[in-house]
Amino acid sequence: MSFKASILTLYPDMFPGHLGHSMSGRAIERGDVEINTINIRDFAEGKHRNVDDTPSGGGAGMVLRADVLARGIDSLPNDGRPRLLMSPRGKPLKQSRVRELADGEGVVIVCGRFEGVDQRVIDARNLEEVSVGDYILSGGEPAAFILLDAIIRLLPGVMGNDESGTYESFEDNLLEHPHYTRPQVFEELEIPEVLLSGNHKKIDEWRRAQSQALTAERRPDLITARNTQKPRK
Amino acid sequence: MSFKASILTLYPDMFPGHLGHSMSGRAIERGDVEINTINIRDFAEGKHRNVDDTPSGGGAGMVLRADVLARGIDSLPNDGRPRLLMSPRGKPLKQSRVRELADGEGVVIVCGRFEGVDQRVIDARNLEEVSVGDYILSGGEPAAFILLDAIIRLLPGVMGNDESGTYESFEDNLLEHPHYTRPQVFEELEIPEVLLSGNHKKIDEWRRAQSQALTAERRPDLITARNTQKPRK
Repeated sequence: MSFKASILTLYPDMFPGHLGHSMSGRAIERGDVEINTINIRDFAEGKHRNVDDTPSGGGAGMVLRADVLARGIDSLPNDGRPRLLMSPRGKPLKQSRVRELADGEGVVIVCGRFEGVDQRVIDARNLEEVSVGDYILSGGEPAAFILLDAIIRLLPGVMGNDESGTYESFEDNLLEHPHYTRPQVFEELEIPEVLLSGNHKKIDEWRRAQSQALTAERRPDLITARNTQKPRK
Repeated sequence: MSFKASILTLYPDMFPGHLGHSMSGRAIERGDVEINTINIRDFAEGKHRNVDDTPSGGGAGMVLRADVLARGIDSLPNDGRPRLLMSPRGKPLKQSRVRELADGEGVVIVCGRFEGVDQRVIDARNLEEVSVGDYILSGGEPAAFILLDAIIRLLPGVMGNDESGTYESFEDNLLEHPHYTRPQVFEELEIPEVLLSGNHKKIDEWRRAQSQALTAERRPDLITARNTQKPRK
């Protein structure tokens, strides 16, 4: 069964973009994932077919209209797929949420543009605001690409042997340990001796210690999250 | 003068992808930004032209070779542009770093694939590891798209009147207040009265209070960051 992603956007031509390449491209070709776009502009009415208007109360920029977007959303079957709005105001996307979404049947993704989206359609259509990070993008589309890329690689059959995904950053709230491969000497820098020892217990210990040290240095927030959350079963 | 982005990747055909549309597309057309790709595979040697090899010490996946990637990096002039490696192990990307990068002359972006990149080339070529968020992507490319999109919209002349960027989430460690626009009634939901009052002081106060309440609810971490950092000049 294929994972269905429906994307509401003012730029349908952006898709599938880079998702058409590499492992996501192969997943689309095989039919493991179906990406279809809905052009929000098709649901505009009136002489000028405006999708946006000036913000109530004044201020810069334009706001995406609630009624136009609602009609776009309502053009899709209400089949229980989560409806996400890519927005810097949203809950930060974590790998655990990506995994939940990948376990489902699909997603509806709304891409905002301009200054924002009328709050009433967010409320009335129960849109889940999701942020991919603490930076500002040109619109929701680049964020939708990230979300879809993260989901698609987790779909059954998508990752090959080269792509593993067994041990990864964040899965245990730790950043990944450093990696090394041949050649054994690179510009006088050698591979750490323990990795060439063949002693798997020592190698595991070394990697774990490296992960912990790196996480403590770069991401003390992850360590805090780890100590306060319940252990996974 | 144009902003120069050089991207080291195994998938040069992915670019410019969605960056070729909308405001980034226009910026590329005008020459405000130049995106050029370097195929890492061109710097592989030997009969099989391998770019990767198995991880020293064992484990799943493949590791991008230090020597191959170093040759790719060294094929670019050493012109002082920051060299970034997109990696979930990196420092989380913030809008302040995006702004610094957009103020510079360009960036060199290394896109990893597979299980990771040999640590020695990260050290020897002083690569700045940057993470776009706490989730796992198929490779560095989707993350590079996000970074470039965030940078390009800040380049001089790129944002039009519709796209403002004057008040935005994160610029003051606050999430943005809700937006509203016409129609005044949408499915029996009305625009909050204060926004129609014409009293700009009251509107500003209401928006500020909404921003603070939303940030406290969704992102208490931003409030903490705000209280501990020095005020901006």
